[in-house]
Amino acid sequence: MNKISVIIVAGGSGTRMGAGIPKQFLPLTDGATILETTLRRFLTALPGCRAVVVLPAAETVRWQKLCRERGLCGTHTVCTGGATRFESVRNGLTALDACDYIAVHDGVRPLVSETLIHTCLRTAERYGTAVPALRPVDSFRTVGPDGTSRPTDRDALRAVQTPQIFRADLLRRAYETEYRPEFTDDASVAEAAGIRVTLCEGERKNIKITSPDDLLVARALAGGTCAAKREGL
Amino acid sequence: MNKISVIIVAGGSGTRMGAGIPKQFLPLTDGATILETTLRRFLTALPGCRAVVVLPAAETVRWQKLCRERGLCGTHTVCTGGATRFESVRNGLTALDACDYIAVHDGVRPLVSETLIHTCLRTAERYGTAVPALRPVDSFRTVGPDGTSRPTDRDALRAVQTPQIFRADLLRRAYETEYRPEFTDDASVAEAAGIRVTLCEGERKNIKITSPDDLLVARALAGGTCAAKREGL
Repeated sequence: MNKISVIIVAGGSGTRMGAGIPKQFLPLTDGATILETTLRRFLTALPGCRAVVVLPAAETVRWQKLCRERGLCGTHTVCTGGATRFESVRNGLTALDACDYIAVHDGVRPLVSETLIHTCLRTAERYGTAVPALRPVDSFRTVGPDGTSRPTDRDALRAVQTPQIFRADLLRRAYETEYRPEFTDDASVAEAAGIRVTLCEGERKNIKITSPDDLLVARALAGGTCAAKREGL
Repeated sequence: MNKISVIIVAGGSGTRMGAGIPKQFLPLTDGATILETTLRRFLTALPGCRAVVVLPAAETVRWQKLCRERGLCGTHTVCTGGATRFESVRNGLTALDACDYIAVHDGVRPLVSETLIHTCLRTAERYGTAVPALRPVDSFRTVGPDGTSRPTDRDALRAVQTPQIFRADLLRRAYETEYRPEFTDDASVAEAAGIRVTLCEGERKNIKITSPDDLLVARALAGGTCAAKREGL
């Protein structure tokens, strides 16, 4: 049996970036799109893994053309997404063969490191689940229904990232449920099924690209490590 | 009476950035350090404002040399910081003449825009206080004392930024109190004095530079707008 499978969720067709094409197809570095970079990070970190890329139905032709140009054919399978992230992950699950662990990752987090992928996998091997999370740098407040706000204990807050890795049987069982609006990630789906979620340390660089500014940031981080090293940072 | 005064808090002497000098003195663009960029944004946005820069005692000579080289002499006053942000702001308050409003800003948030400064000032003119805050993009969890975590309603969370602007009498009254560890920003100090805090919309770009990665990001954002515009983003 295959040890680990990866579901890369790129089901969004949002063109909020203003570039006319979905953000996962925008270039990150060296001609590689955001989505290609994301996929390659997993293929490199987990040799022999099965990967499925979940795309909007309208974008599969664009992706397949890209795969031919960039030598990605045969490295993964493609399935079409749904109206929600939940539905997209569920479609991804049906496209996967039996395996021990399943990682679910946002297609627009291309800066995930090999180290983080392995940290999450080791955590999932030990505890059954692994959700990378980070202490926030900013102060936080919580807004009430009446519009007033109160300070929130920053030390207790964790910003949640992906890849979220689960023992395959746990994730499959969690996704047998019906969709609920509070399912913002796989951890919330697992918890609704009574599965305890284990956090591990995320990475500051592992940002989610949702705006043009995020793309500038990601390009700087993708290409900037050498410059920072030259400066002795 | 002067309408608005600005306290720029650069009291940290941390060299977490690994460059051997405090982060506020690292270059951002065109030879301008982070702190110079921050100061100039306020001097430009609020012509005629009084500005005080709060620095660690050990760094005032470095800053004054920089000010001579960069034509900043006479644009602001300098005072020395304390062991905590609270103490640094309180030192800044004693260095200020009478005025109607006081803005407090992190020295390591150089990307604050003129628009945001004006938004905060208008909000403070109307409500007495103004705290810029942003809806987070990530999912969040809250960690309990036993190490377990639970999902947190992201829609209610706001990441707090600066400048935080207050009617001068309110801020001075708030800072008459004793220091408490939960004072992470001026909003929390004001609230402890029974002052209601009003939020306004922050800006994604207005990041706080606390790590080498943040500096890469800030440089990309500082120089990257034109590139993004060329690409039609």
